[in-house]
Amino acid sequence: MELNRLSIAEASARMNAGTLTAVQLAESCLARVSAREPEVRAWVHIDAADVMAQARACDATARLSALHGIPVGIKDIIDVAGLPAEYGSPIYAGNRAASDAACVSALRKSGAIIMGKTVTTEFAMRHPNKTRNPLNLAHTPGGSSSGSAAGVADGMMPLALGTQTGGSVLRPASYCGVVGFKPSFGVINRAGVKPNGESLDTVGLIARGVADVLSGFPVVTECAAPVVNAVTKLRIGFCRTPQWAAAQPATVTTIEATAATLARAGAQVSDYTLPAAFDVLARAHGVINDYEAYRALSHEIRSARDKISGTVQARIEGMAARSMEDYLEARRTVADCQRILRDVFKQFDVLLVPSAPGEAPLTLNSTGEPTFNAIWTALHVPAITLPAGKGPSGLPVGVQLVGAFGADYALLACAAWAESRLR
Amino acid sequence: MELNRLSIAEASARMNAGTLTAVQLAESCLARVSAREPEVRAWVHIDAADVMAQARACDATARLSALHGIPVGIKDIIDVAGLPAEYGSPIYAGNRAASDAACVSALRKSGAIIMGKTVTTEFAMRHPNKTRNPLNLAHTPGGSSSGSAAGVADGMMPLALGTQTGGSVLRPASYCGVVGFKPSFGVINRAGVKPNGESLDTVGLIARGVADVLSGFPVVTECAAPVVNAVTKLRIGFCRTPQWAAAQPATVTTIEATAATLARAGAQVSDYTLPAAFDVLARAHGVINDYEAYRALSHEIRSARDKISGTVQARIEGMAARSMEDYLEARRTVADCQRILRDVFKQFDVLLVPSAPGEAPLTLNSTGEPTFNAIWTALHVPAITLPAGKGPSGLPVGVQLVGAFGADYALLACAAWAESRLR
Repeated sequence: MELNRLSIAEASARMNAGTLTAVQLAESCLARVSAREPEVRAWVHIDAADVMAQARACDATARLSALHGIPVGIKDIIDVAGLPAEYGSPIYAGNRAASDAACVSALRKSGAIIMGKTVTTEFAMRHPNKTRNPLNLAHTPGGSSSGSAAGVADGMMPLALGTQTGGSVLRPASYCGVVGFKPSFGVINRAGVKPNGESLDTVGLIARGVADVLSGFPVVTECAAPVVNAVTKLRIGFCRTPQWAAAQPATVTTIEATAATLARAGAQVSDYTLPAAFDVLARAHGVINDYEAYRALSHEIRSARDKISGTVQARIEGMAARSMEDYLEARRTVADCQRILRDVFKQFDVLLVPSAPGEAPLTLNSTGEPTFNAIWTALHVPAITLPAGKGPSGLPVGVQLVGAFGADYALLACAAWAESRLR
Repeated sequence: MELNRLSIAEASARMNAGTLTAVQLAESCLARVSAREPEVRAWVHIDAADVMAQARACDATARLSALHGIPVGIKDIIDVAGLPAEYGSPIYAGNRAASDAACVSALRKSGAIIMGKTVTTEFAMRHPNKTRNPLNLAHTPGGSSSGSAAGVADGMMPLALGTQTGGSVLRPASYCGVVGFKPSFGVINRAGVKPNGESLDTVGLIARGVADVLSGFPVVTECAAPVVNAVTKLRIGFCRTPQWAAAQPATVTTIEATAATLARAGAQVSDYTLPAAFDVLARAHGVINDYEAYRALSHEIRSARDKISGTVQARIEGMAARSMEDYLEARRTVADCQRILRDVFKQFDVLLVPSAPGEAPLTLNSTGEPTFNAIWTALHVPAITLPAGKGPSGLPVGVQLVGAFGADYALLACAAWAESRLR
């Protein structure tokens, strides 16, 4: 296998054994970037000399963690000291961050290589940027973590950080055929992440497999992984969600086949319908996001409105129209559903839900829809996308597993089991 | 009355009537700063020429809001474009912010004058800064919003922004004899505020009266005030809280006298004891704050640990020791109590609780204790301090009123009624 395609565990094992150096791994990843970046366009900033200097420093020091010497891409909505911090907006062209975001500092402490800044949509909202789907360049990679998903899928690096306010980690992961993990709200700190919706924004991980997520998650949280019970009889709630009408045939086929495969593999799969209270949750997510994003962008809207894209411009008046009462009511709706969901997860270990409406749309003018991700982001529960099928153009279609708040490692254990059965 | 002591409503009315200019008001406030700043030390940065330029611009344009031409102090944990952003830490000496925080941008849109940056403790944590209590310079003004509370109390400006993670708005307000208001979590956006504990940090307002808070709050939230029912038979739960043993005689006397005064004025005052679930809430607040602040300061701890104060240094190992499981359990504890509290506020309009253990301590080496504020900050409910009594040194002692999540304007209406009865 090419070095740039190694799992983190395998690369780490070889480095431990002295049969691989961080320099060799970095060279392989950089070679892939050189070969593919003109087409994929995953990067805002990548400096090969800086990456190689970090790799040499890694090889010269004792290993600090499973991520020691592993290149990690950082979405350009997350600050890296000294590197561009342009947030996908011409307003911030040439801007450089003074400090590392908390999650980047955590990576540095562990010996990871900060590979560069990956493309984000403008302010992690809906206006597309330059990245293309590496599996078919005419299709969107999804967003807003476009460069992180495309770069990992294309073998440029094994791990990347993204952020999700609606579906910005899980959707691009689904479209690019990789694993996207949005942990429980709060466990990865957001200091140094440009805010979009502050009660929604969640830092997440994108990787080629669940094991790579498991390598990265303890590092980014600065917390050792707990001991998790082995998955035995997994109780899966197959939940079509109130958004089911938006599921295209490829998503319907993929998730039904997934449910059948996992049942054959020994899981107890039951249909589960969310209570009626959840029907208004997608709207509540939108109200919260509007209220918060309008304010988070107050400075930009006031001082540089003409440099904001038409996509976002078109939303500003609607965002501004959300009242405090609407916002507070939406927050109460979320709290009500969070309460209900705690009991749902006494009945099920995970919920199996769609990850995206279908395969990546044939367009570069949209990053697709967060239809099946937004309610789980609002609920603050951990969620992960696994590749599970193909769409009509042969592009990947993912499924989403959702866990109880705080049960992140239990969800990852279930996801690892499911991944092994789906491959 | 001296112009710098006018209420916002009165100053605004006079400006509307053409009998007061923004320039005159700013001159009066700046004169107070000149006279008193050498002793009070409320400011990190104040540039009289810049303040006067803003005032002249206000006088040259149509009035935009009740805050048009009103000077507002901004705690130096909140970014103002072009001004120092030192966060009370030598690590950021000379640092200047590139953008306005969302709440500062909101003030600018309304025509308010950004008067300067007020002193914060280091990173809004516990290490004191240079500010002294304007009522007795040997006593702490409280913290972490030290300069905002001291400056407002001293008549330097009618309104200031602070932030509260434990008790950093309400405690200094209590110590300085002014009104401190911490709204429901989320309604004032935090973009551009240096994070401390991201599920706790709340931007708040400090003013000399509830009416001034009511002038400022709609502007800072960018939401018009709703119509609120007139306060008739106020139902007050007199709640001694699980922290009652920390209440000094001055606090006990003040809150009992307040309960009696408000009952005589027509309120229905009943003793209320929080359920046992709330006994562990103060500890949960500490766990959450530790987990989040350790990560929020990850960059500073990694790259400039020697420039962090001994006060904070002494906490780092303990902060680092909090596990993800402890953190998540604490978050669940908070969620459980939030659920219980919703029902409590069916029974009461507000809870009357202590605001601080006593009057401002006779020291400049500590900012006092957030004992009576932290649990309400964790619960995300709105809370306000009103001056209500005096301590043994003749310094003010406040009481705290707490409202239901989202019932911010109802709480302010109750507080205005209570304030009128307490004066």
